[in-house]
Amino acid sequence: MKAAIIAIGNELLGGSREETNSRRLAHVLEKHGVVVEQKSVVMDVREAIGRELRFALAFADVVILTGGLGSTEDDVTREAVSAALNLPLVDDPSILQQIRLRFESRQLPMPEVNRRQARVFHGQKVVPNARGTAPGFHLNLQFDGNQRHVWIFPGVPYELVGMIESDLEVWLSRLGNPGLHRRVIKLCGLDESAVQEKLAPFYQSYGVVPTILASRGEVEIHIDAAGQADEAYGRLTTMERDLRGIFGTAVFGIDEDTMEGVVGRILASRGETIATAESCTGGLLASRITDVSGSSAYFLGGLVTYSREAKLLVLGVDPEAIDAEGEVSEGVAREMAQGARRRFGSTWGIGITGIAGPTGGTAAKPVGTVHVAVASPGETRHVKSLFSGSREIIKAWSTQRALDLLRRMLVG
Amino acid sequence: MKAAIIAIGNELLGGSREETNSRRLAHVLEKHGVVVEQKSVVMDVREAIGRELRFALAFADVVILTGGLGSTEDDVTREAVSAALNLPLVDDPSILQQIRLRFESRQLPMPEVNRRQARVFHGQKVVPNARGTAPGFHLNLQFDGNQRHVWIFPGVPYELVGMIESDLEVWLSRLGNPGLHRRVIKLCGLDESAVQEKLAPFYQSYGVVPTILASRGEVEIHIDAAGQADEAYGRLTTMERDLRGIFGTAVFGIDEDTMEGVVGRILASRGETIATAESCTGGLLASRITDVSGSSAYFLGGLVTYSREAKLLVLGVDPEAIDAEGEVSEGVAREMAQGARRRFGSTWGIGITGIAGPTGGTAAKPVGTVHVAVASPGETRHVKSLFSGSREIIKAWSTQRALDLLRRMLVG
Repeated sequence: MKAAIIAIGNELLGGSREETNSRRLAHVLEKHGVVVEQKSVVMDVREAIGRELRFALAFADVVILTGGLGSTEDDVTREAVSAALNLPLVDDPSILQQIRLRFESRQLPMPEVNRRQARVFHGQKVVPNARGTAPGFHLNLQFDGNQRHVWIFPGVPYELVGMIESDLEVWLSRLGNPGLHRRVIKLCGLDESAVQEKLAPFYQSYGVVPTILASRGEVEIHIDAAGQADEAYGRLTTMERDLRGIFGTAVFGIDEDTMEGVVGRILASRGETIATAESCTGGLLASRITDVSGSSAYFLGGLVTYSREAKLLVLGVDPEAIDAEGEVSEGVAREMAQGARRRFGSTWGIGITGIAGPTGGTAAKPVGTVHVAVASPGETRHVKSLFSGSREIIKAWSTQRALDLLRRMLVG
Repeated sequence: MKAAIIAIGNELLGGSREETNSRRLAHVLEKHGVVVEQKSVVMDVREAIGRELRFALAFADVVILTGGLGSTEDDVTREAVSAALNLPLVDDPSILQQIRLRFESRQLPMPEVNRRQARVFHGQKVVPNARGTAPGFHLNLQFDGNQRHVWIFPGVPYELVGMIESDLEVWLSRLGNPGLHRRVIKLCGLDESAVQEKLAPFYQSYGVVPTILASRGEVEIHIDAAGQADEAYGRLTTMERDLRGIFGTAVFGIDEDTMEGVVGRILASRGETIATAESCTGGLLASRITDVSGSSAYFLGGLVTYSREAKLLVLGVDPEAIDAEGEVSEGVAREMAQGARRRFGSTWGIGITGIAGPTGGTAAKPVGTVHVAVASPGETRHVKSLFSGSREIIKAWSTQRALDLLRRMLVG
């Protein structure tokens, strides 16, 4: 089964307001095995709504509209659907009565404009709205010889959520579709095209092309399995095992795992601790580590040493290391990692020094040059990288590289 | 002029990934007087992309596509547009050379799959991508007898933003449309409904209801003026002056201003410096301060003291303060702010201690309890707050409150 979602409202087309309903609806549809093939946002204009609805009905079994059911003049969804599908609207006295009672319960008279919300599609189902005045609709009709379902909901998220739960989900689960189950395999240390190339044997075995998404030092491989939950779970697990075979320790987690969460779990399970010393990342590494609930069990503390003086006095970096190679260097990164361990008495220490830009680069050390070091009781390892992008992107990549180096040392 | 925006990508249709590019594009189009009549998201499927593009070209003078220009097999936007508009694709050797050089500059060989990114539309404009391998396109063509512009951009937001600035905005401003000009007035220290209430006299003077958006300790008031830039600028400046009259020091900036940027500007202009000591925010405050380019001029360093020991040994907090009131207390926040100043020798010091949750709360100190203190050479001020929300939201609000306290002390 295929679906299309149409959100209606001028305010959703501008640059200042986020449209959030379609994502919520997509999540529910996906779970019940209905593939969302298209989402769109259109203006509160009858012709635009009608045009988009007919366009969607050409390919989608289920079309969901949200918004434009309010009482004001710019709310025209009801009339647009009526015109586009040639379905007459009629007054429903019992709904009018409910709207009136809703106002009375708040000791208010019903404004005349709200009468419009008692107009319904003749012979079609009305979906009650327990959280607001505008009811929704579930139209069951033929379009160009195909059976189609059109659901119409208010745009107010709180009302929509209530009606998804009370009606849409009940209907979807009765369809009994095999759901679409998803697993996300998360990798670090390879770029998108390297992942693509290594996936060739996987394509050959399974004949499917998984979605690959890259952002800020991580690559995600999304694998899907349709069917009943148990059986799909088994297939996803087999695919995951094969992917782990291909990518080895580059796989750091699945689904909702984060790099900081994975590293934290390993540290906590071993009863080991960590401390950080940051220069160019300015505290972002410590902030990521402490985004994990329960991180106080293994995170002892961090130092942000932006100036030379702070590196010397607060962290205890050897001034000779700075004089020999400069503040952005392998030697200083190693000193910082060891200094963090010493200062906080932790098992592990991480040091990061680099040039986040956009200024401060030189020919020998361009913007994006970052040295990361991780110190353990036995050794200190170092990685030098050259990242490109904005200051924030370079900060994000640097912390990712540092956490990944720690993870690789932890898992051996 | 009318526009349609089409975002391409299977991952954008599911419930798991936000689509953010279309909002960014709508903002730019709006600014230049181009009305966005429709936004849509379609799958990485040639037929779906072609169908949607042709649908949009029927009514929109400008159609903007984003996504699906990557090197992997599921990226089919180039081919879909070629088929839908009957525009042949050809290899461009100079672009191939640029892609190769991009990889070489990072000391990597170019993967074979990236060859596809050197395919261009015969006789049409290529839009250079300074931030990635995939160039974009600007097609100027006739569709059903109408002049149409099709812009095709990569889906990676950082690359898209660069190309909007370098090419799309230049083209839009040459059109010379009377634009819709917007100014965003940013406030801190008032909640959304308080802002709403105080706006009543503004409504009366101007007869417009500005959009109000709230997030993470900030409230934005969006005001618009249509017309030529100079004249609209004058009207926006008058409205801004009136809003500053209403909200006073709660206004911390406009448009792209950030709290950390505003505070940084004041510190830099005075030649003063700052250092931080954080507990529950775990480095996020230092990270925000150092998100500002040039922050090394005034940020000396920060300490993240998660454990009691670190507070005592690394920061030098008085153990009696902890024993008397506990780690999450006004006394400890004050000690931390003063400790940060002392440790780094800065003009100002900020201390934050609190309970970010979701665990660790008690009846006396529930999750969300946060003490913030700012120390200057002359005095130390303190604010206690009770925030609600996730760990990340509480961290964000706490850093915002701290920066705002510093700002208010700086501006007197």
